[in-house]
Amino acid sequence: MNYCSNCGAPVSRKVPPGDNLPRFVCETCQAVHYQNPKIVAGCIPEWEDKILLCRRAIEPRYGLWTIPAGFMEEGETTEQAAAREALEEAVTDVEITALYAVFSLPHISQVYMIFRGRMRAPDFKAGSESLEVRLFHRDAIPWDSLAFPVIHETLKRYVKDRSEGGSSVHVGIVPPPPRK
Amino acid sequence: MNYCSNCGAPVSRKVPPGDNLPRFVCETCQAVHYQNPKIVAGCIPEWEDKILLCRRAIEPRYGLWTIPAGFMEEGETTEQAAAREALEEAVTDVEITALYAVFSLPHISQVYMIFRGRMRAPDFKAGSESLEVRLFHRDAIPWDSLAFPVIHETLKRYVKDRSEGGSSVHVGIVPPPPRK
Repeated sequence: MNYCSNCGAPVSRKVPPGDNLPRFVCETCQAVHYQNPKIVAGCIPEWEDKILLCRRAIEPRYGLWTIPAGFMEEGETTEQAAAREALEEAVTDVEITALYAVFSLPHISQVYMIFRGRMRAPDFKAGSESLEVRLFHRDAIPWDSLAFPVIHETLKRYVKDRSEGGSSVHVGIVPPPPRK
Repeated sequence: MNYCSNCGAPVSRKVPPGDNLPRFVCETCQAVHYQNPKIVAGCIPEWEDKILLCRRAIEPRYGLWTIPAGFMEEGETTEQAAAREALEEAVTDVEITALYAVFSLPHISQVYMIFRGRMRAPDFKAGSESLEVRLFHRDAIPWDSLAFPVIHETLKRYVKDRSEGGSSVHVGIVPPPPRK
């Protein structure tokens, strides 16, 4: 951030009066511009013993597999955001059935909110951000070709829970991947 | 938003290529400025059969009671944010023990993430944003003086759960209060 989005004057980085963290502050109109973490909402679309994964047609991680997920938009609920992403990326209609996991990724200031979703029919195809969309049995998830550590963590727990019958909500932190 | 925070030129509201929602877009440097919901993280600080509430020293809802909660900051986890708010608003040290509720407030684009927190000692006092802080038995919550509908909904479910022994994570929507 270089300029005030309210008045267009240059901003500076300083701790506003009564605050304890540096913010972008406009010296001209006095606006304080807060920056906050973003929610990534997604779901695990389920059909019988299979789940639906999308192969990414966009960077980062072009060509790798993920669940439908993306930034939550203003004016929607977390469940609506998760169902919308399934519709956009996998062109499939899901009923959101339960919250499955809340993972904080503090190194990139994101919070993933992942739900389980029941596919209303085995109908799907690649949306504009997917190269292909495919149902995978829980025993055949492409572990070596998953797009992000948070997806790996989610599906690892999911497969274990489904095999053991567990179903509590997972809350945790997913650290950055190790540097290569 | 009136001006581009990147280059300072005026922004316009339009649907960017490949998108399906209107965004603030800079015609000069082409930056797209997304706006997303914010997370309000908080906790129910517990000490024996009581919970700790704060009476607000700030607007909105000056003088009314709430649990410690506030906007999550960049670089922290949801649990860290919830514990930090308890420290700032009630000057109490809590161990976050479980996610309790996730409530979407789509009319103001906020998502409340509320945890249960075990107070490490019955030590507390009013932080700078509180007029007073007090332990309330679950039978003596000041229902008519709570600050926000989402706090009312949270505590109503909490009291019921504690009396019945339930403990699942609540996920839901809290609509705007009825107009007076």
